[in-house]
Amino acid sequence: MAGGSGSRFWPLSRKALPKQFLNLTGKEVMVNETIDRLFPVIRREDIFVVTSAAHTELTFQMTKGRLARDHILGEPAARNTAACIGYAAMELIKKYGDGIMGIFASDHYIQKEEAFRSVLEEGITLAEREDKLVTIGIKPSFPATGYGYIRRRSPESLMVEEFVEKPDQESAERYLASGSYLWNSGMFIWKASVILKQFEKLLPDIYESLLAIGESMGTAHERETIERVYPSIPKISIDYGIMERAKDVLVLEGDFGWSDVGSLDALGTLYPPDKNGNIVHGESVCLDAKGCIAYGEGRLLAMVGTQDLIVAATDDIVLVCDKNRAQDVKKVVEKLETDGKTRYL
Amino acid sequence: MAGGSGSRFWPLSRKALPKQFLNLTGKEVMVNETIDRLFPVIRREDIFVVTSAAHTELTFQMTKGRLARDHILGEPAARNTAACIGYAAMELIKKYGDGIMGIFASDHYIQKEEAFRSVLEEGITLAEREDKLVTIGIKPSFPATGYGYIRRRSPESLMVEEFVEKPDQESAERYLASGSYLWNSGMFIWKASVILKQFEKLLPDIYESLLAIGESMGTAHERETIERVYPSIPKISIDYGIMERAKDVLVLEGDFGWSDVGSLDALGTLYPPDKNGNIVHGESVCLDAKGCIAYGEGRLLAMVGTQDLIVAATDDIVLVCDKNRAQDVKKVVEKLETDGKTRYL
Repeated sequence: MAGGSGSRFWPLSRKALPKQFLNLTGKEVMVNETIDRLFPVIRREDIFVVTSAAHTELTFQMTKGRLARDHILGEPAARNTAACIGYAAMELIKKYGDGIMGIFASDHYIQKEEAFRSVLEEGITLAEREDKLVTIGIKPSFPATGYGYIRRRSPESLMVEEFVEKPDQESAERYLASGSYLWNSGMFIWKASVILKQFEKLLPDIYESLLAIGESMGTAHERETIERVYPSIPKISIDYGIMERAKDVLVLEGDFGWSDVGSLDALGTLYPPDKNGNIVHGESVCLDAKGCIAYGEGRLLAMVGTQDLIVAATDDIVLVCDKNRAQDVKKVVEKLETDGKTRYL
Repeated sequence: MAGGSGSRFWPLSRKALPKQFLNLTGKEVMVNETIDRLFPVIRREDIFVVTSAAHTELTFQMTKGRLARDHILGEPAARNTAACIGYAAMELIKKYGDGIMGIFASDHYIQKEEAFRSVLEEGITLAEREDKLVTIGIKPSFPATGYGYIRRRSPESLMVEEFVEKPDQESAERYLASGSYLWNSGMFIWKASVILKQFEKLLPDIYESLLAIGESMGTAHERETIERVYPSIPKISIDYGIMERAKDVLVLEGDFGWSDVGSLDALGTLYPPDKNGNIVHGESVCLDAKGCIAYGEGRLLAMVGTQDLIVAATDDIVLVCDKNRAQDVKKVVEKLETDGKTRYL
């Protein structure tokens, strides 16, 4: 899934070049890191990317030979993750008859790739054996309030009891202590036919749209059908639309240094801090700066007496944000949209 | 006087383009504003600029016809204000025999130019009538700890009792309440011959150097002599070398919205704050930002939840500084010098 706008990552993430196409680690752009960490568990020729129709060409260029053009599925409109996953499932049914599909966000970070691939293999085995929905939950490393949680029947259990919304601090600490809770990472593994059955049952309207799209696939009307049908699909997440309501969901515990790199403060998970807890990407001079995160894209970053700030600078924008307010960066983007300042989006 | 390096104004002020050559008000570069506000009290053809020899051509270009080339005096080395003023006084003696000279920093801001010119005229009259040193002191508008003070015999008196170093907060409040104290603005008016007599008396070594330079003026050896003699002149300020030690100094009270624009927090005096006390030069989005000063040179500046910060961004540098630490920006410059990162100076 590479359809996000990354507005909490602004100004590094822009409309024309959202987060999944950024090289934040200094190694590769995120979408390519996402693809590459699947090898060799998943074959290169079996990988698909769903992205905005506006970004299919960009995706082809940025992935530099990793994907065939017909493995880049363009959404004519952003309709949240249920539509995206349903569309991909239908494509797989048409191309392969059926098969295990794994769903991964293209803008997450995983530190321990070997450990990730082990869990992935385990998930594929499980999804092959059981016609159930399988998800990967992340073993919490701290009482995060920024993630949703998955409650298991008990620690070590595969059985999901419920999906839990982002908690307050106190609940998060309780979840961490209990050992039964995992972070909801949004990674899923299941048979294409199994998830489509869930659509049929829980999201019948969307299922109708998916059927119409599926019928057009491989015909001359495919693109026209998608462009007509897709924008009318309700915006609903796979979590809200299916996962929270489905029975018999299984969860595997993953512990591989995962971060959703959701907002700019997550840059803190990609780089080691200096002795004052500052994380500065690029050249810097820090005088009495503490706990700051700065990303300057080739600029010199100088900080004097600053504490717990995020600084992100591009050619045309400088953002300075209290570290506790990282979530509100998207409000800046919304304000720019409202004000029609599209050149900064 | 246009020889400053403006290191407390970094990164807006750079070695290649120090503060006096910046357009901070959106009207004109500071050196030109300094020249233009002297008209019509002082004739255009009587204006001289002393600057670094490295910046004489830049000064000629930036002043766009305001100055003849031979009115730009190039210092082969920065030797503080005593040398600068002595050199200029000698030049005036040689060119005009004698005359009233007024000395003004090229990087100060004055809001009420008419009021400034009135005090200037008063000062010229006073210096013509009496063979004394005349300075303009600024009526304090708040208990500043960043300026030196001039204590008068009494409020309204022209007689200087003493020059006082930058005070602590308590003393500054006492000075403000007394009515006898003025800020030391570093503006002086006197006959060239009068200040040179003070050099002879109080700074005899420098006077010897100035005589040697004076004798070479108009000869083929002038430049060679200046380049040889000038770098050996001791670095001493006119305040420390002469003003604080001279007898019978007169002071005129000025109240014309003066600021020395000494450090980046002084940008606060050039622009009106918004309702949250933010001063942002350029396009901006502020969410819960308070008391911040931001200068982005054409960039969009976004601030979220920030308080009392200075943000200054150029093509290659972003500085973020606690507003109370504005004086320490020069330490960043010193660090860059020590580290040999000359491209950022």
